[in-house]
This record gives sequence, structure tokens and C-alpha cells, in this order.
Amino acid sequence: MSLFITFEGGEGCGKSTQSKALYRYLKKLGLGCVLTHEPGGSKSGDKITRLLKWSKEEHISPLTELLLFNASRSILIDNVIKPALQDGKIVICDRYTDSTLAYQGYGRGLDLDTVKCVNSLASGGLVPDLTIWLDMDDKAALLRKGELPPDRFESENNGFHQRVRNGFGAIYATEPDRFLKLDASLPQSEIFSRIKQRVTILLGCRNE
Amino acid sequence: MSLFITFEGGEGCGKSTQSKALYRYLKKLGLGCVLTHEPGGSKSGDKITRLLKWSKEEHISPLTELLLFNASRSILIDNVIKPALQDGKIVICDRYTDSTLAYQGYGRGLDLDTVKCVNSLASGGLVPDLTIWLDMDDKAALLRKGELPPDRFESENNGFHQRVRNGFGAIYATEPDRFLKLDASLPQSEIFSRIKQRVTILLGCRNE
Repeated sequence: MSLFITFEGGEGCGKSTQSKALYRYLKKLGLGCVLTHEPGGSKSGDKITRLLKWSKEEHISPLTELLLFNASRSILIDNVIKPALQDGKIVICDRYTDSTLAYQGYGRGLDLDTVKCVNSLASGGLVPDLTIWLDMDDKAALLRKGELPPDRFESENNGFHQRVRNGFGAIYATEPDRFLKLDASLPQSEIFSRIKQRVTILLGCRNE
Repeated sequence: MSLFITFEGGEGCGKSTQSKALYRYLKKLGLGCVLTHEPGGSKSGDKITRLLKWSKEEHISPLTELLLFNASRSILIDNVIKPALQDGKIVICDRYTDSTLAYQGYGRGLDLDTVKCVNSLASGGLVPDLTIWLDMDDKAALLRKGELPPDRFESENNGFHQRVRNGFGAIYATEPDRFLKLDASLPQSEIFSRIKQRVTILLGCRNE
């Protein structure tokens, strides 16, 4: 009865806005729903996130990033995602394993099989029922982020963000059925309408 | 010309005392030497250590421990151990990969090959030239810890600490040449004398 939905995409593509909108919509329908995010989403995970995003004291290598993102993931799954799914709830997660493969694998250049292996270890093989990929030209997306100071990932160059986008594209190409790919430059209402449509179909299947 | 020496053993076996004594001894000889420890040993690593040892808010699974210990290790190697070794220094580290295999593998019951795989990934295959294992009856060792409140590992039951000790024994059995196994219940001066003897031989080989 449970459902696990993830949102993926580059910086500033609208994941946060759309995942919140979906959460509110499902709650209004009276459905048990949990909204969370990676990295973080738990008290311990938030501490790891601060280290990952803002560490300036020491060199944090791509390999360290891989291990920290997955440590944060393991805590989130144990303490938030799994209990909610076992309770029959819908879990919406802003970023998940695809982000690690796109950012640390395609973006940073870590060996893809190594990234997949650690992702799979930390997630215990938990794969989303649906992944919504908000695809957008990376320059346009970064402009959307606005005035806040950029973190370690946002401040990477365009080449990095292009590799990340290509990475999402490569993952999508191998598992198109799991994905709903949307053009993130469309109006937000249009994007949300397509997400609603797809989730409604999934809910129908779930209740059959 | 560099040398990488690790100290291993259960709680309260005297690793900290002996590693400090060795550090002071080598410094007096005028040798370039760095003393560090796991988990932690770096600013970011110390934050991870606090999470690992004292987290009470959320469930930290053995798998999360494995990922966090190795993230901390990866930071320590990049920022402390490798630069020192490249500089021709002697690095003394209080705990390293053997602790993860003994505690998370043998102690917590994680699959040993998984632990070895993540250890090897995070350490980049960096193996100590010498590992000093201070072996001690686990009950006697825990008594030595004294009055401080126990962390998540110290407060584990005797069965856990016995499995960890057996784990160190199993690792020692597969690589006896890398190890100097010492009875930690011997007088500290006697233990240190044997460590000094072995390290002196190693230094001799290094300078040949």
C-alpha cells in the first residue's frame, strides 16, 4: 500500500517547490504522507549535510562525499523512510540515490560501479516506485537559486553541472519506466499538473 | 622513508598511552612523526566521531557506523596521514581499518567481505607497515576505563567485546607478519620496551 516517490534534478530546478506541492496535495486527499529530503532529513543527517555542503576547513574528496551521502541516507532510511513505508504511507524524498550517481559518479568522476555499489549497500536495495526528474538547462537553473551564498556543489563550474545533467540523462536512459522526465522550464502549474496525473495513476494501481 | 604504524585493541587496553609514548620517543630521536587517531583526528572527522559515539536521538545501525567510520577515515587519510607519509614522516594512528573489521564485522555481525570492501575503498589500499595489537581480557580492559560515562561502544555488553577480541584474533591469524601482538596486562614499561624494540628494527630496515 505504501509508495516511494523521489524528485531528482540539478540545482534550482524546482524539486523543493514541486515535492512540497505534491505533499500538500496528497495530505488534502487524506492520504498518509511523509515529505523528506537528502542529504539530511534526520537530526544526525543534518549534521552530516552541514559538513558536506559547507566544510571549508579540510579537503572533502569525492570518495568522502560518497561515504557521507550514503551514511546520511542509511540514517534517513532507518529512521524515517522505512518506518513510514512499513506504516503504509507515501514517502516523498527530495533527492535520493540517483543524485549520488549523477553528482559523485558523473559529476565528480568517481567510478560508476563503485557509486552504485555503495548506494545499493546504504539503501538496502530500496528503489523508488517513481522518480520525477526535473530537467533543465544548468545555467538557467543556477540563476534561479538567487541571492543565497552558494554551497560546495552550487559553486562548482558549468562543466560540473553539465556532467551532472548528462548523468541524470544516462540513468534515465537505463530505467525510463521508473522515471517521469519533465522540462523544468515549463510553468510550475503545468509541471505540477503532469506530476499529479502520473501519481494519480500510481495510486490507482496501488488500490487495485 | 615513511612509516605507518597503527595501534589496535579493545576498550581500555592502553593504546592511547602506548601510542603517545612511542610518539614522544620518536620525536626525542629527532624523527619527523605525526600522532593521530580514529575515528576523528581531523576537525570534520571529530564531528563525525561525536555522532558515532554519542548519538542518542536516532538509531545508528552497524551499516551507518561502517559508512561513518570510513568517511572519517577518508578525511583523515587525505588531510593528515597521506601528506605526512609523502613528507617522509612516521605516522602513528590509534585505531585504523582493523578496528572497523573487528567492531562492525565481528562485533556487530556485518558481512566481513562488505566491511573489508568499504575499508579498502576508503583507505585506498593504504596498509600499515606495523600494527601493534594490545590484547587483553575484555572485562579487565573495560574496568580500566574508569569513571567517565561510557560511549555507544564502551556500553556494549561483554558478548560484544568478546566478539571484537576474537575478531582481532582472526585478523591477526591471517596476517601475523604485519602485527606485533602484546599482552596488554603486562606492565606498561615492559610493553613499551617491546614496542620500541620492534620499531627500532623497522627503522633499521627503513634506513638500509
